[in-house]
Amino acid sequence: MTLSEIIPVWSDLDRQTQDALLSSAQERRVDKGTILHNGAAECTGLILVEDGQLRAYALSPDGREITLYRLLDRDICLFSASCMLRGVHFDLTIAAEQDTRFWLIPAEVFQRAMTQSIALSQYTNQLMAERLSDVMWLLEKVLWQSFDRRLAEFLLEESSLAGSDELSITHEVIARHLGTAREVVTRMLKYFKGEGVITLTRGTIRILDRERLEALTEE
Amino acid sequence: MTLSEIIPVWSDLDRQTQDALLSSAQERRVDKGTILHNGAAECTGLILVEDGQLRAYALSPDGREITLYRLLDRDICLFSASCMLRGVHFDLTIAAEQDTRFWLIPAEVFQRAMTQSIALSQYTNQLMAERLSDVMWLLEKVLWQSFDRRLAEFLLEESSLAGSDELSITHEVIARHLGTAREVVTRMLKYFKGEGVITLTRGTIRILDRERLEALTEE
Repeated sequence: MTLSEIIPVWSDLDRQTQDALLSSAQERRVDKGTILHNGAAECTGLILVEDGQLRAYALSPDGREITLYRLLDRDICLFSASCMLRGVHFDLTIAAEQDTRFWLIPAEVFQRAMTQSIALSQYTNQLMAERLSDVMWLLEKVLWQSFDRRLAEFLLEESSLAGSDELSITHEVIARHLGTAREVVTRMLKYFKGEGVITLTRGTIRILDRERLEALTEE
Repeated sequence: MTLSEIIPVWSDLDRQTQDALLSSAQERRVDKGTILHNGAAECTGLILVEDGQLRAYALSPDGREITLYRLLDRDICLFSASCMLRGVHFDLTIAAEQDTRFWLIPAEVFQRAMTQSIALSQYTNQLMAERLSDVMWLLEKVLWQSFDRRLAEFLLEESSLAGSDELSITHEVIARHLGTAREVVTRMLKYFKGEGVITLTRGTIRILDRERLEALTEE
């Protein structure tokens, strides 16, 4: 997949800007599990996903995690290049959840391109607004939603990403996605199991009653 | 205070853009307690604070609140003009916490100005990144910090805004700022009182031991 297929405002960029982006972009391939970017100290560059799945998450001082958002095909990650963005004062980590191919554009090249193209600067505004919306949505979930609802939403989302009713995931990993303790996850999963919504076997969760799970997310 | 004193990139704008902003901006004055903006459905316009104090907060479906950030002198609120920003999918409410004077620029005028000036578009990027940083900071507090620390930080911040050790604020209002229940606030305030950190009288909290409170925020 070329840059022109990933950047929606590509045709609005002048030839010089297009050339600068094309000549500096490097295609990379990482295995599932690789950490691509780790905190604001690194200036990894702009990541444009061709195919695969990345997870952006925040880390607490004592090592707890919460998933902020996912990046799928054609998604663009600004914050791996946050060194180029004034006003960004937070750290995030980006890891590959699946084998992933992506383009990497050096931060300074993208920064220069933004100062040459209003379309690109406006598009960056939109990307930023979308990430802010993701984080607001997460904040409101953490604050106002009951945990059974958050867990039900998480299981449905994972099932949709995996394209399967069977999820290979540990309670520990779910806890890290949701920013909570493993015990809290285990307790709620056992409750779901008791209600006949899921079955639990070692390292695997199978969704039995999708309708009940969906009903939980609408309460 | 003029627009040129509030917008840091003013001198980078061309004459036509400056004139468009100047001729459309309206100066407003609101009393403490006024709600200036209420959710994404309204397109209030860009708010540029001359002096006073505004509070931006999110509302839960059942009426709970959490303070997202404050706007003080020279601060600019983008999200009261979120109708002009692609990618914004959340609602917030903005209320005056003090009598406030501000400039209001219609969303469509600012939007047009952004398409004419890279400097303004870049500055909007920076404002957005700063708000995103505020919300990330809040999310991490809500997730990882103990409530005694959040309450201690809140009391110190309010004391700094008020310029006084005596705060006229109810437990109910603190609960709304922090996105929690009144009972949780009352319990922790009583604990602080028992420890000799504050005194409590009807509708008033007085900070007795600022050092202890500051130590709590550093734990």
